[in-house]
Amino acid sequence: MGYTNLRYKPSKKDLVCLFRIEPNHREHVPYGKAAEMIAGESSIGTWTDVKTMNPRIRRMGAKVFEMRGSWVKIAYPQELFEEGNMPQILSSVAGNIFGMRALNKLRLEDIKWPEKIMKSFRGPKFGIPGIRKLLKVTGRPLVGTIVKPKVGLGPKQHAKVAYRAWVGGCDVVKDDENLTSQGFNGFEKRVKETLKARLRAEGKTGEKKVYMPNVTAETKEMIKRARFVKRNGGRYIMVDIVTTGWAGLQTLRDRDLNLVIHAHRAGHAAFTRGEHGISMLVVADIARLIGVDQIHIGTVVGKMVGEKGEVEHIEDEIEKSFVKKGRHTLEENWKDVKPVLAVCSGGLHPGLVPKLIEIMGRNIVVQAGGGIHGHPKGTEAGARAMRQALDSVMEGVPLDKYAEKHEELRIALKKWGKV
Amino acid sequence: MGYTNLRYKPSKKDLVCLFRIEPNHREHVPYGKAAEMIAGESSIGTWTDVKTMNPRIRRMGAKVFEMRGSWVKIAYPQELFEEGNMPQILSSVAGNIFGMRALNKLRLEDIKWPEKIMKSFRGPKFGIPGIRKLLKVTGRPLVGTIVKPKVGLGPKQHAKVAYRAWVGGCDVVKDDENLTSQGFNGFEKRVKETLKARLRAEGKTGEKKVYMPNVTAETKEMIKRARFVKRNGGRYIMVDIVTTGWAGLQTLRDRDLNLVIHAHRAGHAAFTRGEHGISMLVVADIARLIGVDQIHIGTVVGKMVGEKGEVEHIEDEIEKSFVKKGRHTLEENWKDVKPVLAVCSGGLHPGLVPKLIEIMGRNIVVQAGGGIHGHPKGTEAGARAMRQALDSVMEGVPLDKYAEKHEELRIALKKWGKV
Repeated sequence: MGYTNLRYKPSKKDLVCLFRIEPNHREHVPYGKAAEMIAGESSIGTWTDVKTMNPRIRRMGAKVFEMRGSWVKIAYPQELFEEGNMPQILSSVAGNIFGMRALNKLRLEDIKWPEKIMKSFRGPKFGIPGIRKLLKVTGRPLVGTIVKPKVGLGPKQHAKVAYRAWVGGCDVVKDDENLTSQGFNGFEKRVKETLKARLRAEGKTGEKKVYMPNVTAETKEMIKRARFVKRNGGRYIMVDIVTTGWAGLQTLRDRDLNLVIHAHRAGHAAFTRGEHGISMLVVADIARLIGVDQIHIGTVVGKMVGEKGEVEHIEDEIEKSFVKKGRHTLEENWKDVKPVLAVCSGGLHPGLVPKLIEIMGRNIVVQAGGGIHGHPKGTEAGARAMRQALDSVMEGVPLDKYAEKHEELRIALKKWGKV
Repeated sequence: MGYTNLRYKPSKKDLVCLFRIEPNHREHVPYGKAAEMIAGESSIGTWTDVKTMNPRIRRMGAKVFEMRGSWVKIAYPQELFEEGNMPQILSSVAGNIFGMRALNKLRLEDIKWPEKIMKSFRGPKFGIPGIRKLLKVTGRPLVGTIVKPKVGLGPKQHAKVAYRAWVGGCDVVKDDENLTSQGFNGFEKRVKETLKARLRAEGKTGEKKVYMPNVTAETKEMIKRARFVKRNGGRYIMVDIVTTGWAGLQTLRDRDLNLVIHAHRAGHAAFTRGEHGISMLVVADIARLIGVDQIHIGTVVGKMVGEKGEVEHIEDEIEKSFVKKGRHTLEENWKDVKPVLAVCSGGLHPGLVPKLIEIMGRNIVVQAGGGIHGHPKGTEAGARAMRQALDSVMEGVPLDKYAEKHEELRIALKKWGKV
């Protein structure tokens, strides 16, 4: 078919994908043939030659331009894609190819966007600088919590837990991923109560606080909920980007409601975790392009999977303006697309904070649910312990030593230990 | 934590999930513990006890009620979920759990919907009876094609290829998954030209014909395109449900535009193919609930993966009104939710048709791209060959024998063989 040209240098008008492949051994498919088939199926080809092909279309074919073991790079002319249409782009480069018999495994590892495509999406409205400005917090990580239990509290109880967390020291309080608008806790009531509690907490602490209501729903309802948040003085919303899907996320961003968008990623690990599927790096990459302001990227040290190297790569991809080519990652020049704030969440507690900051740096949200509300003295003490852990790092004092003079931290370390 | 009760019988108010699990051997997690952790994380729990828990909420916890080797059934009280909000439901039962370190592998195999949740979604508007009525075709499978090459043809060429396919004998012509509205083939121009060609083809053949334009895009744009199709006399649209996402699909269905919705599934195999992720059965199940009218489910015999048993289960799930419990599937009573037409597509050609119909029955769309446009005599002959293959089955004549008197079929069998 002729989709391979190892002397080809991708131009600025190409979208480049890095794949990791394992051909079907049983059917003795060689690597080169497998790569060809991917390039064909994801651009202009199918399993057999067709009579309706012509030379102009043939020139639009994708090109396999690099092969190193199982790592394959393919360049796609940008005219294959519709600008501003993420579902279309993914139906091409992350579509049928995952189901091909010719492959045992295929993983889309990274995407490099051509400038024209990059400009056709909005990117983050706030990003790291906007969030820091809104919260008036510079230099240190933000501290966040998820109201727990995940679901079940009523609106008033929910607001009360949020208040305790803010007063204890959290900057950010969010809903959990499976709380939207159920019978026990309707969306509008909860948002009103919790935003009222936020005002009280701001008054009491003199700090800026934010609440992220979970607007995840069918698109129209989601937009309605986001508008409700705005009308009621909210500054932030959260959305489950994977279960909502890219079309809905784009719509939410396109409304440009001047709300910070927090991206939860529930469900991503169904396809990011193994050797077949799409990397979390690609998910984060797409989320930045469409324009979320902060996104969960893992913790390295908590209850969820996520290797150190991988999580660091993701942080680079979402925070840097120029991402250098890595061994298994592509270069990306984000130019004026704002950096996205990395949220580290999943099984965190105060004892993990120094290690987390050592690995991830200070441009993160240290977010804990159980690690705050599970504190033996309750939510407020839990938030205080977490903030103390953070302060210990900022002041350069070892955690144990800091705990000597800070009771909440001491209790937390006693319960959960440290690394 | 107490999420296991092997004597529990799920009630009609429970949503039931069937999971296949492989606990983390390195960390010596036993099956029972792994199942508990799934039930907790997907309902009300987290990795540690929290002080904000109370007995009322504890009763909302999911229950592990059956464990057979690696197969685990969990019942969720319906009040955990928001009616009519598929992203929320999936953020619960197909969310964080995929990323837990306590598991090596986790696959959501099937979901049984409680009546209240089932009623909160629209289900198909047309389904099999509506489609058959629209096309005035009874008793035989429909024959469909995808315009090929996948992308690159201009609107007029596209319409011409569609015309040839219809005149040759196709009932259905669709866009390919990566064709939406690119520079070389704008959506509106293509839809106008192709719908005009459809009228001409109907005049020439005396048969009803349909064209499925691909409306996949950001939600608002997608609705705009669907309305355009309707205004221009179209009866059908197609959408890539996985890359679009559930929020967008719900919005499209909720608009109730009286257009048949064809669901393409590009990208599903990123998470349906391995032992970790979500089964295609679940994807098809959700698509029926939300309300697509037809959906790709595989071919068993073509270029894509998909085992015989699995594809048959999926067909049962989308076409039957009462689905009996299988060894590795749950019972489902769909009541008045209409049956969805199964589309078999991916590497099909005339030589595979008898086997395909033997396995899948007659309530299918036999859809071929390369297997029609790759015919040595071109698209029209390719469509004719495919229709002839279908006729041979309907008339009970062996393919080879039928080919003796049908040149197009003979040429196709010579090129691609048969099974």
